[in-house]
Amino acid sequence: MLQIWALDGIPEITPRDDLVGVILDAVAAHPAEGSALRDGDIVVVTSKVVSKAEGRIIRAADREDAITRETVRLVASRTSPSGHVTRIVENPLGIVSAAAGVDASNTPEGTVLLLPVDPDASARALATGLRAATGAHVGVLITDTLGRAWREGQTDHAIGAGGIHVFEDLRGTTDAEGRPLVVTLPCVADELAAATDLVKGKASRRPVAIVRGRGDLVGDLDLPGARSIVRNPVRDMFRQGADEAYAEGFAAGRAARG
Amino acid sequence: MLQIWALDGIPEITPRDDLVGVILDAVAAHPAEGSALRDGDIVVVTSKVVSKAEGRIIRAADREDAITRETVRLVASRTSPSGHVTRIVENPLGIVSAAAGVDASNTPEGTVLLLPVDPDASARALATGLRAATGAHVGVLITDTLGRAWREGQTDHAIGAGGIHVFEDLRGTTDAEGRPLVVTLPCVADELAAATDLVKGKASRRPVAIVRGRGDLVGDLDLPGARSIVRNPVRDMFRQGADEAYAEGFAAGRAARG
Repeated sequence: MLQIWALDGIPEITPRDDLVGVILDAVAAHPAEGSALRDGDIVVVTSKVVSKAEGRIIRAADREDAITRETVRLVASRTSPSGHVTRIVENPLGIVSAAAGVDASNTPEGTVLLLPVDPDASARALATGLRAATGAHVGVLITDTLGRAWREGQTDHAIGAGGIHVFEDLRGTTDAEGRPLVVTLPCVADELAAATDLVKGKASRRPVAIVRGRGDLVGDLDLPGARSIVRNPVRDMFRQGADEAYAEGFAAGRAARG
Repeated sequence: MLQIWALDGIPEITPRDDLVGVILDAVAAHPAEGSALRDGDIVVVTSKVVSKAEGRIIRAADREDAITRETVRLVASRTSPSGHVTRIVENPLGIVSAAAGVDASNTPEGTVLLLPVDPDASARALATGLRAATGAHVGVLITDTLGRAWREGQTDHAIGAGGIHVFEDLRGTTDAEGRPLVVTLPCVADELAAATDLVKGKASRRPVAIVRGRGDLVGDLDLPGARSIVRNPVRDMFRQGADEAYAEGFAAGRAARG
């Protein structure tokens, strides 16, 4: 049985807030689900509050500049009939997303948020702090809402991980018929992120959720972080948008004739 | 509080098995989590067992032919250094995935499985049957394991839906600051699919999970199915692999000068 719940009563986070303390206060305020964190609990935190605690807040007027600055590589862009430009870019974390993760929802008026500088480091720091304060062997994920190729809508994904396996490596194990499961590598970190979005919600202020029941995924603090989920563009058949790749090919084809 | 558990004791499914009966037997055998389905429960079924019940089994020797037949459109392909060819294709359901969803794991020796012909219809039939048999207003999702652009590993996604909202439409609602959430369309069906993979597992025979705690997502049987999650390729910046788009552009560029 997996149990997932969001913590109520997390206050608005401001720069230099102690997230470990904030989370533990919220846990203690809701003894119905257990008044303390337990070994094997997974604490899943929306990147927005990590960004706020880290002071990654800029003026909204600087949004377009910030997107440009956070862009390592333009992957694709498209202009809607109304003139709105969507830029899908790779950010310094390697994550491919719209607007480089620069976020204008649930931020103080006139401001936008950048992603945490190093969400894996932030997750490890949170896991370290929560383990030290409680004695419970917990794991931490930091999440962001991302769109997908080929499918409408968004789902939450893991962009930071501390003390938790991000993949459940079944390679080498067998299926129910005893045959090897060769290509299966479930990204449990993304599945946990998605699961907790079902209780956190977007319109409410519940940026932290607890998952109880997959303690087998919790491990050492030096496990690979969520950075290891990011596919190397060299390996990625979709490293560039179709229009952009076509245009590059077209130019090269013309030049080849020149 | 969201509660998610997998049903133990689901037998090996064979063509024409009654999945409604199989699921209800498994629910009744585990009274620990409640001996009956309740209003608002969401029943999440791995497509593999739906395919088996529908007799979508073919000889493994016909696998490559089956992939070709299930391919509406080749999206991208790549040959690994070892010579293994990965084909990312759009199947008749519009779903973009490796090998058109033709699946060789957890199938009887010498056979492979095709996806259900119409997973939305299958999900609606299951929801109808479960509602009629129990009186409980439940929703049904049918899932498949899919790879993603830009990210390693796979997660489970919804490919069929009956009596459940596949999106939580927050457009028109506001964030905690009272500003409109303009572009947010969480794909809750995919999030539920991902969440249940955490309890179903790949190596065990637990193809059915129950989610309790999001009854607000359960609705009429004529709600749009999972087909509505599939993005129209015309709208998709990643409708074609980068190499394939480049090659098309190159050929067109050469021809343009001719």
